[in-house]
Amino acid sequence: MDALKTIYEHRSIRSYLDKEISKDTLNSILEAAVRTSTTGNMQVYSIIVSQDEEMKKELHKIHFGQNMVLEAPVVLTFNADFNRFNKWCEQRKAEPGYDNFLSFFTASIDALIAAQNVAIAAEAQGLGICYLGTTTYQAQKLIDLFKLPKGVIPVTTLVVGYAKEIPELTDRLPQEAVVHYETYKDYSKDDIDRMYEYKESLEETKKLLEENKLETLAQIFTQNRYPKQMNMDFSNLFLEVINKQGFMNQ
Amino acid sequence: MDALKTIYEHRSIRSYLDKEISKDTLNSILEAAVRTSTTGNMQVYSIIVSQDEEMKKELHKIHFGQNMVLEAPVVLTFNADFNRFNKWCEQRKAEPGYDNFLSFFTASIDALIAAQNVAIAAEAQGLGICYLGTTTYQAQKLIDLFKLPKGVIPVTTLVVGYAKEIPELTDRLPQEAVVHYETYKDYSKDDIDRMYEYKESLEETKKLLEENKLETLAQIFTQNRYPKQMNMDFSNLFLEVINKQGFMNQ
Repeated sequence: MDALKTIYEHRSIRSYLDKEISKDTLNSILEAAVRTSTTGNMQVYSIIVSQDEEMKKELHKIHFGQNMVLEAPVVLTFNADFNRFNKWCEQRKAEPGYDNFLSFFTASIDALIAAQNVAIAAEAQGLGICYLGTTTYQAQKLIDLFKLPKGVIPVTTLVVGYAKEIPELTDRLPQEAVVHYETYKDYSKDDIDRMYEYKESLEETKKLLEENKLETLAQIFTQNRYPKQMNMDFSNLFLEVINKQGFMNQ
Repeated sequence: MDALKTIYEHRSIRSYLDKEISKDTLNSILEAAVRTSTTGNMQVYSIIVSQDEEMKKELHKIHFGQNMVLEAPVVLTFNADFNRFNKWCEQRKAEPGYDNFLSFFTASIDALIAAQNVAIAAEAQGLGICYLGTTTYQAQKLIDLFKLPKGVIPVTTLVVGYAKEIPELTDRLPQEAVVHYETYKDYSKDDIDRMYEYKESLEETKKLLEENKLETLAQIFTQNRYPKQMNMDFSNLFLEVINKQGFMNQ
């Protein structure tokens, strides 16, 4: 499918048919990862392919019991990964200096760009995908499950499969909310009101507020979905993981 | 252009024609960013579009004098950005709790996935792109240049324009070097030798070694391109930026 059309028609798919992905199709998607631009062409990322039912049950628990993890035939976990590169250096009389935070972030960039290549390659072939934000929260549990060595940290996950149904396109803020020309134009009170007006006016928003007995959509985020204490707790856990996996030499 | 073909035929373009990108084309590329999957549909990223010659001269200096920054008609800087979202929360009787590392990383994921959508949307329309890894090294200078407020940190940059010439596809490691099934299979000495054999055998590699009077390709990375002390220095600077921009509440 045309790349622009694929991108414009993206929706996250949260419910999947019980239908396998063929080996060829899976391979074509993974090849899209391989062709990704990476820092210095170092390819400092890796992908764990989960298809085994027992592994998916474990992943289902780790990812907060989201059903799409069980339903989708393939779950792909993308890791920042300096392990292979470091091993290569050590076998070639070169001393790797990649045990620092910058290197973790560099490897995360590689992994995330690869993930989006994979997402588009899947969608272009009629598959649906959804990103799992729980990956960073649960990095340590994923490290244990996949037996990831030092130098490897999961940063995102895609579930991939055939959609049970295609939902409507999700609303987005207008382009002016994310694009700035030459310098950053900070938002006035009126800008914020204007940019969020459409999102706040949706029926779906009104329903959410009723169900949750809250006054504003923003409160759904700060009180229910991403509350401060949860963010702080997972933040500290993730920093510990980065340290433990060998990326905090200062 | 077909999405898979666009992805498989990607090459980084480092030399550009003196040819503008039309407003419509630029707009279609930025719309690809807007349609990106983001965490909780919060869209916690932003993009700075640089077209002004004076701004590009400043960017050229900041990005280590790489000529493509001057040549390409458009430079796009992608930021992790909680500023707009925080302002919205504050205007809507909601207390944002996004001043921690996890939130910075969440916003970085949004920014990086948006960047790859933009890259593919550009390439599908016959444009060339190149990522600038210098963005994280020089985050503070970019913050100053673009006047980025607290809550905003640049994480990657794309130069975009019409290629002066189309280089050959760059080599990649075989798929087995980045893909693992079910659990991580750590690499044996033989695995590393086999996976890097092709890359090490290239004429281009031999030329690099001669020019740099080094024995192995890995040494080109550890001694010339990404040496330990440079990584450590930029790592500490980047961590300071993350703290200064308000993402290190622990």
